[in-house]
Amino acid sequence: MAELVPVLIGGQWKAAKASGDFRAINPQTRSPLPGVYPVSSLEDVNESISQAARAAELLAATASEKIGEFLKRYAERVEKRRDEIVQTAFEETGLPKDPRLSSVELPRTTGQLRQAARAVRDRSWTLPTIDTTNGIRSCFGPLGGGVVVFGPNNFPFAFNSIAGGDFAAAIAAGNPVIAKANTGHPGTTRLLAEEAIGAVKETGLPDATVQLLYRTDHQVGEKLVSHKLIAATGYTGARQAGLTLKRAADQAGKPIYLELSSINPVVMLPGALKERRGEIVNEFVISCLMGTGQFCTNPGLVVVMAGSESEEFISEVKNRFDAAPLGTLLSSGVLDNLTQGVAALLNDGAEIVSGGKLGGGEGFSYDNTLLRVSGKRFLANPEGLQREAFGNVSLLVMVEDDSQLLEVLRCLEGNLTGTIYSGAREDESLYRQVEPILRRKVGRLLNDRMPTGVAVSPAMNHGGPYPATGHPGFTAVGLPASIRRFAMMECYDNVREHRLPPELRDKNPGGKLWRLIDGGWTQDDCVG
Amino acid sequence: MAELVPVLIGGQWKAAKASGDFRAINPQTRSPLPGVYPVSSLEDVNESISQAARAAELLAATASEKIGEFLKRYAERVEKRRDEIVQTAFEETGLPKDPRLSSVELPRTTGQLRQAARAVRDRSWTLPTIDTTNGIRSCFGPLGGGVVVFGPNNFPFAFNSIAGGDFAAAIAAGNPVIAKANTGHPGTTRLLAEEAIGAVKETGLPDATVQLLYRTDHQVGEKLVSHKLIAATGYTGARQAGLTLKRAADQAGKPIYLELSSINPVVMLPGALKERRGEIVNEFVISCLMGTGQFCTNPGLVVVMAGSESEEFISEVKNRFDAAPLGTLLSSGVLDNLTQGVAALLNDGAEIVSGGKLGGGEGFSYDNTLLRVSGKRFLANPEGLQREAFGNVSLLVMVEDDSQLLEVLRCLEGNLTGTIYSGAREDESLYRQVEPILRRKVGRLLNDRMPTGVAVSPAMNHGGPYPATGHPGFTAVGLPASIRRFAMMECYDNVREHRLPPELRDKNPGGKLWRLIDGGWTQDDCVG
Repeated sequence: MAELVPVLIGGQWKAAKASGDFRAINPQTRSPLPGVYPVSSLEDVNESISQAARAAELLAATASEKIGEFLKRYAERVEKRRDEIVQTAFEETGLPKDPRLSSVELPRTTGQLRQAARAVRDRSWTLPTIDTTNGIRSCFGPLGGGVVVFGPNNFPFAFNSIAGGDFAAAIAAGNPVIAKANTGHPGTTRLLAEEAIGAVKETGLPDATVQLLYRTDHQVGEKLVSHKLIAATGYTGARQAGLTLKRAADQAGKPIYLELSSINPVVMLPGALKERRGEIVNEFVISCLMGTGQFCTNPGLVVVMAGSESEEFISEVKNRFDAAPLGTLLSSGVLDNLTQGVAALLNDGAEIVSGGKLGGGEGFSYDNTLLRVSGKRFLANPEGLQREAFGNVSLLVMVEDDSQLLEVLRCLEGNLTGTIYSGAREDESLYRQVEPILRRKVGRLLNDRMPTGVAVSPAMNHGGPYPATGHPGFTAVGLPASIRRFAMMECYDNVREHRLPPELRDKNPGGKLWRLIDGGWTQDDCVG
Repeated sequence: MAELVPVLIGGQWKAAKASGDFRAINPQTRSPLPGVYPVSSLEDVNESISQAARAAELLAATASEKIGEFLKRYAERVEKRRDEIVQTAFEETGLPKDPRLSSVELPRTTGQLRQAARAVRDRSWTLPTIDTTNGIRSCFGPLGGGVVVFGPNNFPFAFNSIAGGDFAAAIAAGNPVIAKANTGHPGTTRLLAEEAIGAVKETGLPDATVQLLYRTDHQVGEKLVSHKLIAATGYTGARQAGLTLKRAADQAGKPIYLELSSINPVVMLPGALKERRGEIVNEFVISCLMGTGQFCTNPGLVVVMAGSESEEFISEVKNRFDAAPLGTLLSSGVLDNLTQGVAALLNDGAEIVSGGKLGGGEGFSYDNTLLRVSGKRFLANPEGLQREAFGNVSLLVMVEDDSQLLEVLRCLEGNLTGTIYSGAREDESLYRQVEPILRRKVGRLLNDRMPTGVAVSPAMNHGGPYPATGHPGFTAVGLPASIRRFAMMECYDNVREHRLPPELRDKNPGGKLWRLIDGGWTQDDCVG
């Protein structure tokens, strides 16, 4: 047996107590890549959990400046090793090196780490709330145990379990992280982990602040998220695996934040196509095929009014889909799911406009695929026709009239995004009927542009009602709100002033912290 | 069969589709009270759910001022009918009419409704967040379906499913409420519901904004909280029933906020008893026996250092417990649980200092009961000795030294509150060891006073880690945070300004709304 790549537990790279092994596959050649990675047994999991619990106690007593310094140094170290990290991610995911990996996703990732560092120093994310009349003060603080992060296959950096948004948020709240690598890109994750633990040692954080396991079997994974000493879990990935982990975590009373599938409905009101069909065709094709459609906010369902305008739209999109080069899919798993997803949609009544079969070639690929179905047919099986086919596929629902449009929207499940394209003026009254229905079903509502592209903004909501996520009140992207997922509410009642955490003492630490004192937000000191 | 009291569905008092019936019992006489109440079948439940779903759509389009007006009018109507409501609650719960019901709990309840009304008008609870650079704006908004509220037995007004904190919060967020009465006080709940629906009609809210069912069987209750059209649930009550509902809601991906059992550990550091034993005895006895100990924040576990000082403390408390009159317990269920709880604690090694048997007399009562156990014994079975005995009972844990004290604290489950009494100066270094452990295990940390008494303050946290509640980030008491439990995050990306909700438009509506614009909190307009 080849030597297994070591896991990172308690600050040490050590031989895994493995129950099996696996290799990463280059999706462009279908060949295994060097490096044999361990499937960790319960022993590894339990050791990382106890290490994290001890680290959590130490971190709670660590000055936040130090945690901020770690995040900043980590970002710098990743940038310094950019070429090697990008090359590895390219081999493991097939995503283009430039611009995607090198000029877009990596800077976004280090940008997130730096934003998290600023949030940690600023402390406003803790929402300090002071009631001087009753002598009660509260803020958000760390959870007191390890946070488990499961990263998805489609963002090897920005959502990586040891470098992405959930990681940054959990660390910023003051929790240690146990990262479970995505098995599609273990080598990328390993390189990131090397820089993470390097930055941990350099800045003197507890050794077990960052730990890395590559894989576990399902049963061990369920034990991990439901363990007594685990504080919470962040999971981004496929629905079925996510729901299995949710069940285990829920039963143990452990918070779990999920980002599952989403088909991101786009509603085209008639005026939009009439006024600027060409532009919309272009926006849709780019949004749908970018990254071979492998985005959580990919526009997978488009609702248009049947008629000659939309037939024109379809025919122009079809031409563009047929002409566009085929991208590489992330893995054989993605290809299989996509193939099955399209087959299921066809079986439920969708028809092929374009594509609909394997892409051929050396790597994993599938034709750029456009499907269509009538509103009536959709309404006969709304659940089946909302099945996500993750990748370069979109389904057009052709509705007959306004009332069928509204009926279709009422059948939608929870989604991350919902988009309404409308004319400059003429669609206002229809918009006012469409919006209230769509609003309650999506986390982010857009006008007049496609949903791909998730800005790291304090106002962003990368979340939405179940089953897009597990709770409609939380976002996975956008600091400071994403940090509060991994925090508990700490209330101090009649606690002596010198014993309070700095953000709740009379004096504003640093003078920049925003606090809600007696009903008003202020950066002033508290005059108790 | 006697005629059943009607249920409130869709704005009408109508005959229940009942699967059984029940009566309330006067706990002071053990006699059934007039009024036969229905156990609702699935038919009632389903009808109330569809009505709520329709009302939710209408409410989302209702001006918030109108919802605020409803809350205010409801408070006024309750006050106008105070005598009848207090008399009924007294008969159903045995709680003293004055001061408890009339001068404390009822004003607290109408005060909460008025605070919620102000929060609805002010809108700052929605945390409007504006990023002008990216054109993204977000805030919290209603969930889009009915919220189910289950109220507990021990607060017939302040936590009542149709008048208490969860009700006020769910309505303030813009959701209709389906109230499930506590079966201990159905008549009180009915009177409150009469005033609630009166205020609904008076202010022109959708008829199904408030609905009332008295009881369901367990299976129907699980269907209620997990129904597709239900948005969320608030539950305050016994642990087992709460966890059963949680399982059903979790499986359906529906948020459920629980307030379950809590023993509210109190840690007495040596200096405190040395400096002011007499005062602390007094505070403890009052806190422990008030309301016959039937508070969620009752001090059920006290950790003291073994020694002569604490023996004195125990003997003084014993004298006070023996001398204090016995209160009436809320129901035979409470009495049974208490009896079984004490028996289980004794079985697990606790010893009786005082009380420990039925109280005798006509009503439901149990001796004021003080138990003790050594730290060593506690550590041998920490789970069993943390069993809640809801009522006028407390368990003292006598620890040998500092390190055993810390070990005991490490074994504690999640609780609503944790209290540390300490000397003026001498306990500082021990405090610094105790606090970090206790902090992560409780929602509210107190110094030098007992945990009973939950101020309705924006800084309050009436919550805590599992199993005290289902999630450590939320509070059931304290506006505006409690409102956000029943809200979803709504993000608007590139949405035309005139289509935004008022709180996200450029102009600050009313000029008093606090908004986070480009990283700073302000009441100014947004200059986009």
